[in-house]
Amino acid sequence: MSSSEINKNEVDIVIGALNADLTQFLNSWKPFFSGFHLIIVKDPELKDDLNIPEGFDVDVYSKPDIEKVVGAANATMFSGYSCRYFGYLVSKKKYIVSIDDDCVPAKDPKGVLVDAVSQHVTNLENPATPLFFNTLYDPYCEGADFVRGYPFSLRSGVPCAASCGLWLNLADLDAPTQALKTEQRNTSYVDAVMTVPLKAMLPISGINIAFNRELVGPALVPALRIAGEGKVRWETLEDVWCGMCLKHISDHLGYGVKTGLPYVWRNERGDAVESLRKKWEGMKLMEKSVPFFEALKLPESAVSVEDCVVELAKAVKEQLGSDDPAFTQAADAMVKWVQLWNSVNSSG
Amino acid sequence: MSSSEINKNEVDIVIGALNADLTQFLNSWKPFFSGFHLIIVKDPELKDDLNIPEGFDVDVYSKPDIEKVVGAANATMFSGYSCRYFGYLVSKKKYIVSIDDDCVPAKDPKGVLVDAVSQHVTNLENPATPLFFNTLYDPYCEGADFVRGYPFSLRSGVPCAASCGLWLNLADLDAPTQALKTEQRNTSYVDAVMTVPLKAMLPISGINIAFNRELVGPALVPALRIAGEGKVRWETLEDVWCGMCLKHISDHLGYGVKTGLPYVWRNERGDAVESLRKKWEGMKLMEKSVPFFEALKLPESAVSVEDCVVELAKAVKEQLGSDDPAFTQAADAMVKWVQLWNSVNSSG
Repeated sequence: MSSSEINKNEVDIVIGALNADLTQFLNSWKPFFSGFHLIIVKDPELKDDLNIPEGFDVDVYSKPDIEKVVGAANATMFSGYSCRYFGYLVSKKKYIVSIDDDCVPAKDPKGVLVDAVSQHVTNLENPATPLFFNTLYDPYCEGADFVRGYPFSLRSGVPCAASCGLWLNLADLDAPTQALKTEQRNTSYVDAVMTVPLKAMLPISGINIAFNRELVGPALVPALRIAGEGKVRWETLEDVWCGMCLKHISDHLGYGVKTGLPYVWRNERGDAVESLRKKWEGMKLMEKSVPFFEALKLPESAVSVEDCVVELAKAVKEQLGSDDPAFTQAADAMVKWVQLWNSVNSSG
Repeated sequence: MSSSEINKNEVDIVIGALNADLTQFLNSWKPFFSGFHLIIVKDPELKDDLNIPEGFDVDVYSKPDIEKVVGAANATMFSGYSCRYFGYLVSKKKYIVSIDDDCVPAKDPKGVLVDAVSQHVTNLENPATPLFFNTLYDPYCEGADFVRGYPFSLRSGVPCAASCGLWLNLADLDAPTQALKTEQRNTSYVDAVMTVPLKAMLPISGINIAFNRELVGPALVPALRIAGEGKVRWETLEDVWCGMCLKHISDHLGYGVKTGLPYVWRNERGDAVESLRKKWEGMKLMEKSVPFFEALKLPESAVSVEDCVVELAKAVKEQLGSDDPAFTQAADAMVKWVQLWNSVNSSG
């Protein structure tokens, strides 16, 4: 699917601005962002004025805009990397594509710049196949197909809820790994898209992601944050938790999640060794989260994404709340998020 | 892991000879088969004498050898593509690598011939990660790692039971797909190995496969065959069924199955359009098999691979037996296979 075949009115590109100067970032993406509507959400903790080059169709939201929509009390939900969730909340489009502002277009092995937007939309528009594993990768790609033995009744697939892209140069590692392997760079361009099977858990990254907002919008929830969660991705847990929720809810509702292409080129930000000196709470929280999600079974009565998020929040509070106050806060944030979603999306 | 680092005494390369003239096949593999022990099993229905070039350490088994070991009544289990299972039965090695005799070494994108044997053994010697999905593919590969959010408690992985390789040129498609897309060729070299997640079902192909015989040997079982199953892979169901059994048993016992590299270059054999004229029973049987495996839960008392195969056979007979006589025959063959395995492997 080429850029020209995409209905650009169906897509919002959401950028969380953690850097004030977006000139280099946006100019690098110009060939692929051009003609699309951009929602830029400024991290409410960022003091400097944003620097946005001309030539983009962009709406910018900063702290006062956030407070106006969600109230001053709720605005803290959208600080740091979580600011992009405000863009998800106020978008009216079918698809959201979101890329961190320290990423630029990657080159494929032939040296051609990768159109991440088109690839994400292609992933979302084609069905996903979570019910049976296809060893030949995404069977809907040009020249690909279903492998021998793939059940014919499952070949029409299910709707694709989300598309998770990957990272060249700096891969998305956690703080300890990044600090221990400061020199490690990802040079491996794996030319494949695949559906993550039903029930498989994965830590979805917010760096380079797209999703069908009409299908699963409220499942993308800013909820679990660790005390002292920094301005560097390797210390961040909010997107990992959000991804676990999104995958579980997609499984429950019969949607699929894809991973693989597109790649983006990720530049460095922050000092990993500095991060290592901090105690990384995320590690401990993930160890508690995994058995929780493994055992989780949403009730059949949860038929909408909003239902699912609320039920999930209830289970988090009941089963994890006593383990760590971060989980109770997450559960509360999830309920609050659904309220905000309903309020913003019904008033519009 | 390079060829020089592999303990060649731990590996048997098993070839099912469906063609009498193996000269071109074996010579093409000489750089990678050299120094390894080969077990060549001649399809008992093949009349012509085998043509095997010099320079290989090879044991050949033909119809009389098969009958001597398993008895004339059981020899039919090993006809056609199933002859390679006889090699699995009589091997004494830790690892088996098996490649169809219409495949030659593939070239990677740099034009270098792929050492499929080393890649398979590398896959098997490194742990698998079926309990949580790593978006960065096999974390044990050079330059790769676990993605942010991957639980630290799961990073040691589990033993790898099997390694499923892929196919360039002619991909492993079923008869209808192959016949409808006669011109389609697989040119996509996806440079990645990954673990298929726990509970995900996949149709494992026997064309290019390796496994840890000590760990899961008896799970590779020749069982489900369709009437008139031909001498062309696209009509074959035995390996697809065997793969479903292998994956389920590996899941039950806590082992992993990998897929991806190595590729082999697969040449054409047979007339796909001719195959299309036949009624392909496999399609119908797969539709029944999928819900069966989906719902299957082996009892906790099944702690050995042999136990698992016998329990699986029991469930097949009970739940699928009335649907199609092929399933009853498969169940009987599975029980028979375990008896043969125990008898051959205890007498040695």
